[in-house]
Amino acid sequence: MNLETFIKSHAGTPIVLVQGLGFVGSVMSLVVANAINGNYAVIGVDRDTLAGRKTVDSLNAGVFPIVADDPKIAEFFEKSRQKGNFYATTDTAAYAVADIIIVDINLDVHKVSNEKYALSGYDVTLAPFISAIKTIGRHCKPDVLVLVETTVPPGTSKEVVAPTLKAALEERGLPSDKIRIGHSYERVMPGPQYVDSIQNFYRVYSGIDEKSADAVETFLKTIIRTDEYPLTRLGNTNATEMAKVLENSYRAMNIAFVVEWSRMAEEAGVDLYEVVHAIRQRPTHSNLMFPGIGVGGYCLTKDPLLASWSRTNLLGGKDKLKQSETAVSINDQMPRYAFEFLERRYPSAISSKSVLLLGVSYRGDVGDTRFSPVEPFYRCLLAADARLSAHDPYVNRWPETGISPHTNLSDALTVQPDIAVISTGHRMYQQEETTKALLSCSPMWIYDTIGLLSSTQIKKLQTKHTVIILGRGDL
Amino acid sequence: MNLETFIKSHAGTPIVLVQGLGFVGSVMSLVVANAINGNYAVIGVDRDTLAGRKTVDSLNAGVFPIVADDPKIAEFFEKSRQKGNFYATTDTAAYAVADIIIVDINLDVHKVSNEKYALSGYDVTLAPFISAIKTIGRHCKPDVLVLVETTVPPGTSKEVVAPTLKAALEERGLPSDKIRIGHSYERVMPGPQYVDSIQNFYRVYSGIDEKSADAVETFLKTIIRTDEYPLTRLGNTNATEMAKVLENSYRAMNIAFVVEWSRMAEEAGVDLYEVVHAIRQRPTHSNLMFPGIGVGGYCLTKDPLLASWSRTNLLGGKDKLKQSETAVSINDQMPRYAFEFLERRYPSAISSKSVLLLGVSYRGDVGDTRFSPVEPFYRCLLAADARLSAHDPYVNRWPETGISPHTNLSDALTVQPDIAVISTGHRMYQQEETTKALLSCSPMWIYDTIGLLSSTQIKKLQTKHTVIILGRGDL
Repeated sequence: MNLETFIKSHAGTPIVLVQGLGFVGSVMSLVVANAINGNYAVIGVDRDTLAGRKTVDSLNAGVFPIVADDPKIAEFFEKSRQKGNFYATTDTAAYAVADIIIVDINLDVHKVSNEKYALSGYDVTLAPFISAIKTIGRHCKPDVLVLVETTVPPGTSKEVVAPTLKAALEERGLPSDKIRIGHSYERVMPGPQYVDSIQNFYRVYSGIDEKSADAVETFLKTIIRTDEYPLTRLGNTNATEMAKVLENSYRAMNIAFVVEWSRMAEEAGVDLYEVVHAIRQRPTHSNLMFPGIGVGGYCLTKDPLLASWSRTNLLGGKDKLKQSETAVSINDQMPRYAFEFLERRYPSAISSKSVLLLGVSYRGDVGDTRFSPVEPFYRCLLAADARLSAHDPYVNRWPETGISPHTNLSDALTVQPDIAVISTGHRMYQQEETTKALLSCSPMWIYDTIGLLSSTQIKKLQTKHTVIILGRGDL
Repeated sequence: MNLETFIKSHAGTPIVLVQGLGFVGSVMSLVVANAINGNYAVIGVDRDTLAGRKTVDSLNAGVFPIVADDPKIAEFFEKSRQKGNFYATTDTAAYAVADIIIVDINLDVHKVSNEKYALSGYDVTLAPFISAIKTIGRHCKPDVLVLVETTVPPGTSKEVVAPTLKAALEERGLPSDKIRIGHSYERVMPGPQYVDSIQNFYRVYSGIDEKSADAVETFLKTIIRTDEYPLTRLGNTNATEMAKVLENSYRAMNIAFVVEWSRMAEEAGVDLYEVVHAIRQRPTHSNLMFPGIGVGGYCLTKDPLLASWSRTNLLGGKDKLKQSETAVSINDQMPRYAFEFLERRYPSAISSKSVLLLGVSYRGDVGDTRFSPVEPFYRCLLAADARLSAHDPYVNRWPETGISPHTNLSDALTVQPDIAVISTGHRMYQQEETTKALLSCSPMWIYDTIGLLSSTQIKKLQTKHTVIILGRGDL
């Protein structure tokens, strides 16, 4: 099938185009193709690059490009294939037929850090985003609804997207007053609730005018279970854009907050985990975070900077968001703090010691190493001349470092490490077999950087090994 | 009745002494005197000063010294008077007969601020606290249980209380190994749940050794509904002391976080209240705070500093808790930010304008002006040469400023203010009569610093007046 055939075979059906087929766009396409209150033909468009073409070919060949625990992914993908209402392409001609265009491309921040991993500068690279919006403007219908889902610097829909699209339409000699532009952010969580995190979750939305907001509302009601998860309309697009980055800045700051306390707990001989557990019993304090090796993933590490950047670059403010920038910088340094904790505790130099990393991906039971905090931790160990190896049941190649983790724990343990570091929260490390395997090694140090070990495990391991835990001064 | 008679009449009954009869100690005394699973004779001891004697005389005369909304206060006080098991005194002889001593005195921080209300320095004044502990040591039984409830710098029970008490016992030629010392913090909230915030709430506790922790547990189980609100024992006294200041630092930081966003919302034409409401729907973000005029009360304004001070002064750390100190400093400046918002918006100079403050106490429906953020806000207006007056239904004398608020709103409005500022969340300001009274005035500016006005109220008021709201750039 080609694009033309796909379009012809869906004549009369509203066409939804999803721009960008990454972690959000690919699953968003499935949710729209399986709309609960509507019937859409969905065209997923990716860039005409090697990676883009690979994603598109994979989708059209019936192989979903993202591996995820959620069985609904396969189910939704299969359904859309049976219905034949989902087609992927790199052909920009698709924009011309779309009634609704959902923008799900990335908008990146380029960070500059010093040798201690503290943030020394950053820049928001708007150009690729603007170029994608221009592509829409060059081809779209004048009355299309453009729904931006990308996490953007607040002000972008109003100051960038709207003028860019309108100028492009005017250049084509078309009216620019019929286009509707809205913003609504997803709260996608890759993992077992992947589809539900779109279909069964609260949404915040807005439009650049009343008609745009109405159009977004009408559309979202067809794909989200708004009876159980009511929509929230905010006053303007600045508000929803700000809400998204505020959400993630809040979380980043809560994580950063606990870093200092983690060190204080160490000095005071205190188990910070039990302290945090005790405090979180209060509903007013339930969002307090636990200590850990660092923050991973695409959002928390950059969204506060998007917000701060926009304040002075798009919204006319004269100050940065200092606290949010500080939070990012502190979080970026967490892996180094985690390394320093080991350095302070370990009785001799780390140099030439054999260190085994248990887990390299950015979160538990996921095989994704992008923005993993284990990487800077690894670099600290490397700079200290440790001999490094790694284990990860989900990762046999760690592109950011070039090393190849063992996927089998017994194989990994044959090096008889001096120090084994629990660096990712894979559930298998909590299992009895892991404890047994560790106990079969010669006496070593076990360093839990995320508080994963249970007290029973700790007691067993302590019969042979020395156990230390980040944020626990009592061990 | 005198102390001797009281003691004699309770021979055979365990005696609990509460040291310090302030906001915590006075209500704690009532809770112990009405223990749910025990029978105690309670002696409340205050200092032999004018204020202390006044409190003691008032209690013994049957007048509870703190005015509060909670009907249980009167009920518990009356019950203890009927049982005759509560006596107040300034006589240190009481310490000699106590089986349990609960320390509920204050431990203050002396803050130094610059002209912009930013924190420029601070000092923890431990001396009065140590002196109170010495008083205990000079008189107490060698096997007394001393339960510290005061919010102290982490490390205090172990590094200050224990050595001070043991030295005092040894000086008296008594054994120092029988004393039990514990720490457990209350989460008292003056207001309608005053008694419940002690009797029906979670507690965290610890002891300087196992026996001490056991003794604290046994006692707490007799006064708290631990079946519904289970106790949490932490590993050592450093941990519980740290938990308390961490709790309040967390809250202070969450408040400080929203300050910058408040200004950004203003620049972006965004209603930050609707944004925060939308975000708080997520359980992981439910502790996000709303913007406001500032932080009041005794705890949040100093506890983060207690923590930071202890890190370098008691626990041997080399760094301060920078984020927590920054949070206090930002919060201290919030009233100034609130003033600057008005200055930016108001079309002419504030100088010589008549400004009416609606509410001067530190929180809604409470008549307490100590540490009220309205005070620095008032000082900013004063420095700008505004003509100031105030209304507060609960406060007819504002000692911190020397002015006397009107308690009747109509009286307050006869000045025909240029600007009326809603500065405290008294419920009466949300009522229809208030809206009517404001609408009867000549056109003016109404400045809501806490987001108290409903959208209905705002619409009505806007028919005549100009309404601005802190954190709302859309108005």
